[in-house]
Amino acid sequence: MKAVTCHEGRLTVAELPAPEPVKGQLVLDVLRAGICGSDLHARLHCDEVAEASSYAGYEGFMRSGDTVVMGHEFVGEVVDHGPRTSRAPKPGTRVVAMPLLRTGSEVHAVGLSPHAAGAYAEQMVVQSALAMPVPEGLPDEIAALTEPMAVALHAVRRGEVGKSRIAVVVGCGPIGLAVVLMLKASGVRTVIASDLSPGRRALAERCGADVVVDPGVESPWEAAQARGHYKDAADVFGLAVDSMEQLRAVPLLPWARVMHAAEALGAMPSGPVVFECVGVPGMLDHVLASVPLATRVVVVGVCMGSDAFRPSIAINKETELRFVLGYTPREFHETLHLMADGKVDPAPLVTGTVGLDGVAGAFEDLADPGDHAKILVDPRLA
Amino acid sequence: MKAVTCHEGRLTVAELPAPEPVKGQLVLDVLRAGICGSDLHARLHCDEVAEASSYAGYEGFMRSGDTVVMGHEFVGEVVDHGPRTSRAPKPGTRVVAMPLLRTGSEVHAVGLSPHAAGAYAEQMVVQSALAMPVPEGLPDEIAALTEPMAVALHAVRRGEVGKSRIAVVVGCGPIGLAVVLMLKASGVRTVIASDLSPGRRALAERCGADVVVDPGVESPWEAAQARGHYKDAADVFGLAVDSMEQLRAVPLLPWARVMHAAEALGAMPSGPVVFECVGVPGMLDHVLASVPLATRVVVVGVCMGSDAFRPSIAINKETELRFVLGYTPREFHETLHLMADGKVDPAPLVTGTVGLDGVAGAFEDLADPGDHAKILVDPRLA
Repeated sequence: MKAVTCHEGRLTVAELPAPEPVKGQLVLDVLRAGICGSDLHARLHCDEVAEASSYAGYEGFMRSGDTVVMGHEFVGEVVDHGPRTSRAPKPGTRVVAMPLLRTGSEVHAVGLSPHAAGAYAEQMVVQSALAMPVPEGLPDEIAALTEPMAVALHAVRRGEVGKSRIAVVVGCGPIGLAVVLMLKASGVRTVIASDLSPGRRALAERCGADVVVDPGVESPWEAAQARGHYKDAADVFGLAVDSMEQLRAVPLLPWARVMHAAEALGAMPSGPVVFECVGVPGMLDHVLASVPLATRVVVVGVCMGSDAFRPSIAINKETELRFVLGYTPREFHETLHLMADGKVDPAPLVTGTVGLDGVAGAFEDLADPGDHAKILVDPRLA
Repeated sequence: MKAVTCHEGRLTVAELPAPEPVKGQLVLDVLRAGICGSDLHARLHCDEVAEASSYAGYEGFMRSGDTVVMGHEFVGEVVDHGPRTSRAPKPGTRVVAMPLLRTGSEVHAVGLSPHAAGAYAEQMVVQSALAMPVPEGLPDEIAALTEPMAVALHAVRRGEVGKSRIAVVVGCGPIGLAVVLMLKASGVRTVIASDLSPGRRALAERCGADVVVDPGVESPWEAAQARGHYKDAADVFGLAVDSMEQLRAVPLLPWARVMHAAEALGAMPSGPVVFECVGVPGMLDHVLASVPLATRVVVVGVCMGSDAFRPSIAINKETELRFVLGYTPREFHETLHLMADGKVDPAPLVTGTVGLDGVAGAFEDLADPGDHAKILVDPRLA
C-alpha cells in the first residue's frame, strides 16, 4: 500500500506492506486524515518532543532517525480485524478511533511513534476498543475532525469559563477555531478571538466568535476592558479599602459577614479565561504581561523547547495557567456526537484537501499558513 | 521616633518625625513586626518588583532610590486616630491590619512603598477600616504572624487540595511552614514537606508535616509515589485502553456509561498539589520536570526577574500552575481567629527577635538562613 513516511524531516510517498492486525486491532481503509500542527512540529522538532514525553513517562515518541507514518486524526472504513478480536465492528463500518495502539505490553501514540503507523496511508490499524462507529449522515471530512475537536472540547472543559467570564482565544489556527466552536457550543456568552490573519479572523467569525480582533491594531484585553471586564491591582487595593469602609458604616453587621460582603463587592475579581492557541516562544510571557488580574490562561498551543517568562508578573496578577493535552475517551465520544447531532459544525475549519502525493506540499503551505486552517488528506485522490 | 529606613539597599536606624494620621487612619505603637522574604527581595531587587507591579496596575511600589520604612507584618497598640475617623478602636486596643493605606485618592502597599511607611519603627499609621482587634490572650509574637499566615491560608484555599490528593510543600521557610500549618488545619491528610536544611525539616515536623524529605537524598515525588500517588503517561495510555477493553467485554452497558466508567477507572488521574515556596530561578522548571502527571503547582515563592521553563513538559503532564499573592480581607480575619481559637499554632515559626538596631543584621542572617525561619522585630528592645 502507499503511505507517506517521515525520516529526518523528509516526507516521502513510499510503498509499504499492508498492515497486519493482531488481536484487538482493526484494519481501516483511510477515508480522510487531518494534518495537525503537532505533525508540523514533530517533523522538525521530534527529538525535543520525545525528550518532553520522556519526562511524562512515555518513551515511544518518534525521533528524527526513525521512519514514521504520521497522521493521528482520521476516519476510516473497517476492512478486517485481528484474530480473537471480540466485538469488532463489521467490515464496511465507518469508524473514528483514539490514536493509541497496543503493541505487546506497550501502548503507543498512533502517527507519532515508530511503533504505531498513522493515517497518511491507504490503510492503517487501530485499537478496536478505542474505535467508535461514525453516525450515519456525518460526512467523512467532518468525522475526520473528531480528534482536534476533542482537543478543543477538553481545553474548554478544563477552562471552566462559567457564566460570568469572558473567553479570549489567542490564535485562530485549527485548534483556536475549534476552541471558538466549542466555547459557543458550551454556552459561553462572549468569545473574543484574535489573529493577525484577516482570513483566519473571517473563519473565527464563521465559527461564532462574538468579537474578532486584529492584535496588530487592538489588543483582545482592550476589547475585553471595553466590555467592563478589567481590574488592575490599584483597583483591587481601592476596592478592598472602599468596601471595608462602606461596610463598617453599616452598624450591627457581624464582622464575618462584612468580610464576606467585601469579597462579594469585588475585592477578588475574576478576569477572562484566555485560550493560548499559538504556541511560539515568548507568546506566554506576552500573554502574561498583558492579561488583566485573576486571568486563567489555558495553554493549548504547544511551545517546543525552553521558554522564558516573568513569574513575578503572574504572581502580581494571580494568574492561573492550565496546560492541557488531548482528551478523555468520553470527551472523544462526546465530540463525535456533538458533531453528528449538529450541535457543532466545524466545516469552516477545512480549507483544503490533498492526496498522499500532496502531503509534503501541504506541510510546506501550513508552515506559513496565511489563511489556511485544516488541510485534509484523502488517500484515494491521485 | 526611631525607624529603620531602606535606601539603595542600605538599612539604617534613623530619627523620623512621628506619623500624623489623617481621616480614616490610626496611629499604632508597634509591638512586633515580622521580617518577610519579600523585604529581603525588595531591599535588593525592588526595581524589578516595581516593574512587575506596574504590569499589574500598581505604580507605587518602592524603587531603589526611594527612602522607605519597610515592614508589612505587624501588631500594634492604638494610640491615636485621625480627625473624623468613624468607629476608630479605643486607645490601648491591640490591632493587626491589612497593609494597605489610603493617601488621597490612592491606596498604597504599607512597608513596600515610599507613600506608606511600615512597621520597622516605633510608630506607624494604618487604615482604620482594615484594622482588626486582636482577641485577648493571643500573644504579640503570634498576632504579628497574621499577615504571613493569611498568605498561607490564601495559598491553601487556592490550592483546593481536596480529600483524595497529597500535598507537597517545597521549601520550609516561614511561608512553607505556614502552608504546612494551614494544610493540616484544613484537614489535608498527607502533607509531605521538603527542605535541604535539617533545622527547617525539624520545624516542618513541629508544624505537623506527615512526611519530611531531604531533597538531596529523596525527592518528594518518590515519597509521594511510595504512597501510590503517581501515574505517568504510559500508565494513562494503558489505563485508557485496558479500561475500554474491560468495559467493552461487559455486555449491555450503554456506551456513554462505558466512557464515564473508563474515566472513573483512572484514565484521568489527579496528581499531588505542590506548594512551591522557594522562588529561586530554575526552581519552577525543576518542579515541572519532576512532578507526576496532572499535578497542580501553587506558586507561592516569588521568583524575581525572568525564569525559563519547558512548556512542552507541563503540557505533556497537564500541569496546572496557580500563582498566588496576598489574601482577601476575609482570609486575613479568619487567620487571626484561627490562631486566637488555637486551631493553628505558628509558634514554631519564630526563631529570633531583635530590636530596631538588629534589623540590618537580621536581614544578613536571613539571606543565608540556615535553620532560621521568622525573625521578629520588637521596637521596644534596646
